[in-house]
Amino acid sequence: MEISRTTAEVPERARRMGIMHESSRVVPEEVPIAFTYRGSTHAVMMATPGDFEDFATGFSLTEGIITEPAQIESVESVVEGQGIDLQITLKDEQGDALTARRRHMAGPVGCGLCGIESIEQAVRHTPDVSGSALKLSEDDVVEAVALLHGRQPLHMETRAVHGAGFYVPGKGLIAVREDVGRHNALDKLVGAAARAGFKGAEGAVVVTSRVSVEMVQKTAIIGSPVIIAISAPTALAIRTAEEAGMTLIALVRGDEFEIFTHADRIQTGAVADVA
Amino acid sequence: MEISRTTAEVPERARRMGIMHESSRVVPEEVPIAFTYRGSTHAVMMATPGDFEDFATGFSLTEGIITEPAQIESVESVVEGQGIDLQITLKDEQGDALTARRRHMAGPVGCGLCGIESIEQAVRHTPDVSGSALKLSEDDVVEAVALLHGRQPLHMETRAVHGAGFYVPGKGLIAVREDVGRHNALDKLVGAAARAGFKGAEGAVVVTSRVSVEMVQKTAIIGSPVIIAISAPTALAIRTAEEAGMTLIALVRGDEFEIFTHADRIQTGAVADVA
Repeated sequence: MEISRTTAEVPERARRMGIMHESSRVVPEEVPIAFTYRGSTHAVMMATPGDFEDFATGFSLTEGIITEPAQIESVESVVEGQGIDLQITLKDEQGDALTARRRHMAGPVGCGLCGIESIEQAVRHTPDVSGSALKLSEDDVVEAVALLHGRQPLHMETRAVHGAGFYVPGKGLIAVREDVGRHNALDKLVGAAARAGFKGAEGAVVVTSRVSVEMVQKTAIIGSPVIIAISAPTALAIRTAEEAGMTLIALVRGDEFEIFTHADRIQTGAVADVA
Repeated sequence: MEISRTTAEVPERARRMGIMHESSRVVPEEVPIAFTYRGSTHAVMMATPGDFEDFATGFSLTEGIITEPAQIESVESVVEGQGIDLQITLKDEQGDALTARRRHMAGPVGCGLCGIESIEQAVRHTPDVSGSALKLSEDDVVEAVALLHGRQPLHMETRAVHGAGFYVPGKGLIAVREDVGRHNALDKLVGAAARAGFKGAEGAVVVTSRVSVEMVQKTAIIGSPVIIAISAPTALAIRTAEEAGMTLIALVRGDEFEIFTHADRIQTGAVADVA
């Protein structure tokens, strides 16, 4: 395995119309990627190798380790065995804050927390994004997803990865990132958008996947008031978006979509009542 | 929120044929579920509430904490805040083994491991399953997936959850479990099959999702030599299945499918060479 490749072509035996053929297929790579600060690993994700600076920056932002990209001094990606170690050096003050936080953190898992503490940690506070003045038209929603479909080279090749984009009205999709994991795609996107100087409050997060609560939390942490997803949301994602003042739009297919929370941010015509 | 419900009906505003309507949709629930042994949490999963005994048993098996269901003394599901704490009591000897293991475990994350150690832990050893005598016909593969499609009530209701089944040739699908997370669905299935007395080596794991390396590892840990998936595999999942002696079949659509590893376990006619 060459560790920086994002795909691999593998031999296979395919059954087509009742007959077995020797064939091949392109599949996405997946490697363990560690996030290491001051020589100690914060987490390991199974992810598609690539966009390491974006990934390190986005992960540090959505985990609350930094609040802006400039707080990272450097990111080094080091091949270690079968994986990649992202060695992230923070500027002094952030490093000190991280160390202080770690003392309180005790986890997240397998480290002696009881069930109550662990559950409280899992449903961490989601920032309120109701202050954003962002408005989208119905056409913006449709356009954001249509643009995302056209900018997923890895998915075109493999039909097996997730995409995440950041849509700014009038500017279109200012960044798109892909990964075998939907949380990773979002973290990479968050890093890419932040490094390019875009503020979350200026646009909407657009994802190809379903919306679990963690996708809403990551979107809120960067201050974006809108998440648009091709697939369905969970009940907890909807409750969390409702409380955070976030507009959650899902199940976007062609020019049809469904708005689950804070529909007032989407400028629309008359609404028929078919209930 | 009533914590034991698996779905919620939520109001929404749906855009259909260019017109906005007030409507509603059924979405899957998602709650933090903690696995607690001896008062200390091993992990928290965001999961669909339900099948708690299966989930606790399957998780304990695939995490290597137990090797058979009888090693669990009891499982209590306790509502804690917004989540559920599964308090798992092991029989004495297993409890002692877990304590000893924890001392070596140091993690998995945020607990001072360096990148190299964390990466090694992520790509843990996958048991060899080549010893199983299981053979499947091409028709078995097609049947296993067709049967799974018909046994997903939660997915029928929400179109938004994953399913996992255990297929035994001649017996059909002996268990099916669903969850908003694909790893959770597989853990619940593993627990259900084990509690019903089925051995992994006797059948194939069938999943609606993609196949990442962790799905292969969980399948190998219960001794099953075949994993069949509706969606695509990752390159690492394929390499891991190859090394473990496991047959990995994916992209099953109707009576078409693709075999990526150890095709000899699937009894087939002549194979055409179209390379």
